[in-house]
Amino acid sequence: MNNITRVALIGGTHGNELSGIYLLKKWGKNNLFSHWPQLDLTQTIANPRACERSVRYIETDLNREFAIEGLLDSQRVGYEQLLAKKLNYQFGPKGNSPVELMIDLHNTTSNMGACLMLLRKDVFNIGMAAYVKERMPEATIFFQDNLPEQRKRFLVSVAQQGVTVEVGPQPNSVLQQETLELMETMTRHILDYVVLYNEGNLGSLPTEFEAFQYTEDLVLPTDDRGQRIAMVSKRLEQKDFHPVEPGETIMETFEGVPIHWEGNYTAYPLFINEAAYHESHSAMSLSQRIIVRCADYF
Amino acid sequence: MNNITRVALIGGTHGNELSGIYLLKKWGKNNLFSHWPQLDLTQTIANPRACERSVRYIETDLNREFAIEGLLDSQRVGYEQLLAKKLNYQFGPKGNSPVELMIDLHNTTSNMGACLMLLRKDVFNIGMAAYVKERMPEATIFFQDNLPEQRKRFLVSVAQQGVTVEVGPQPNSVLQQETLELMETMTRHILDYVVLYNEGNLGSLPTEFEAFQYTEDLVLPTDDRGQRIAMVSKRLEQKDFHPVEPGETIMETFEGVPIHWEGNYTAYPLFINEAAYHESHSAMSLSQRIIVRCADYF
Repeated sequence: MNNITRVALIGGTHGNELSGIYLLKKWGKNNLFSHWPQLDLTQTIANPRACERSVRYIETDLNREFAIEGLLDSQRVGYEQLLAKKLNYQFGPKGNSPVELMIDLHNTTSNMGACLMLLRKDVFNIGMAAYVKERMPEATIFFQDNLPEQRKRFLVSVAQQGVTVEVGPQPNSVLQQETLELMETMTRHILDYVVLYNEGNLGSLPTEFEAFQYTEDLVLPTDDRGQRIAMVSKRLEQKDFHPVEPGETIMETFEGVPIHWEGNYTAYPLFINEAAYHESHSAMSLSQRIIVRCADYF
Repeated sequence: MNNITRVALIGGTHGNELSGIYLLKKWGKNNLFSHWPQLDLTQTIANPRACERSVRYIETDLNREFAIEGLLDSQRVGYEQLLAKKLNYQFGPKGNSPVELMIDLHNTTSNMGACLMLLRKDVFNIGMAAYVKERMPEATIFFQDNLPEQRKRFLVSVAQQGVTVEVGPQPNSVLQQETLELMETMTRHILDYVVLYNEGNLGSLPTEFEAFQYTEDLVLPTDDRGQRIAMVSKRLEQKDFHPVEPGETIMETFEGVPIHWEGNYTAYPLFINEAAYHESHSAMSLSQRIIVRCADYF
């Protein structure tokens, strides 16, 4: 793989996730973008109008508008659909982009801490995960390389490589200093890694690290009018990436009837009760804990 | 004072504060409203359209639209301005309402726990606070009877008596079971209290209790373009109702310069970093800790 020099740092893909928006402001004020002179580092607020209004999006979720068919479909002229075309023009075209890495900065209302979300398992991504995890042991590495194709419609898919920095818990439209610092620390490590990766100067990375692998999503049950009839159990509240064994209570109906995890594996939930998934009635995503052996990829 | 029999229980004054909305659903499903047969208890979702869209409001904050001048001003025809007139017709008219008590159910993204917010210090309110605090020691009693007049534009001001149940931390558009249970517990105690109050059967209330008294609001500093140049210090994050001494750091600029509390009293902040106050750049409200002696009011 070539050197990674053109790096796009993105905030405000969702206009009410303030850490990324303010990280770019803070770095601008403090002239931090010049801290990696080896890189051609740009910064962009992806959805400025949504940021102005402090909403996730104006019409549709921008971060689900980057399927190649949608980008090419001239009939899709909703606000974020047009914005996606503009961003694809700016950073793409998808599949043939000159941008070697895009880093998209996000918040979640779930208690996921600092989470590095990766769409591939290749030398570059595995090395990044190992590097970040070693310097930031509290971070979580999450692989979603097995997401269904219709879910891989993220902004970062426009660039050659894309990673998402996902930090929480932080309510929408709130800026918490500690959350901002977690995002800043992880983003710095990623950029440091890119420089060392280019120099072939990574030193000794750990031979293995813990990560989580996406498995499936769980939705809250609804009645025939589409109204929720249950909520996430308080047993799971704030317990992202804690194990849930088959048979454990994961939701509860408003009449007090428990709903159990019916899968046959130990699940590690994430995005538990995430506000943005309110519309889809998603209760959480699930993952499995894995140990990644770097030698398998290097 | 007369008996309190006509009681209006309100959810969804803010459409993205889910605990109140779902408490009414839950009580409906489980036939809980008949649990207080001595009361004429009604339930109302105040802003159904905002609830449908899971936003705080459509055009303006409904819970600031109940100034008497606004209710009488036929030129004020914004969505929530009209809705306020409709609610004033339904529950008022303000100043001459047949509704003896309105209980308005709210969430905050701040870590305020279960907070009973009171607009008066009279026998009924002081008795309620003492009763609730005794049965729910983790609850916080907050008096905002000294709010500036232009701030007393709450929905509950339409009824003869009004209290706000404010529970957090809960992100907007999220329903957490534990937060719902806190709201349910406090609301049950309030209704139980009303029945005993009417019967003159309160038994022995505590002679005194701890409470917090509103003092002022603090805003984040902004530059000449209205952009924030600082954030709430992480020292205060999640520390609602914890003491802040004069001289302590309460905010920090994006360049890392601390901003100190310059008042001359020990302040107890609340609504720290509340998402809804994003537009006004409010950092927090402040209060002072007080001990209320019931004998002063009975």
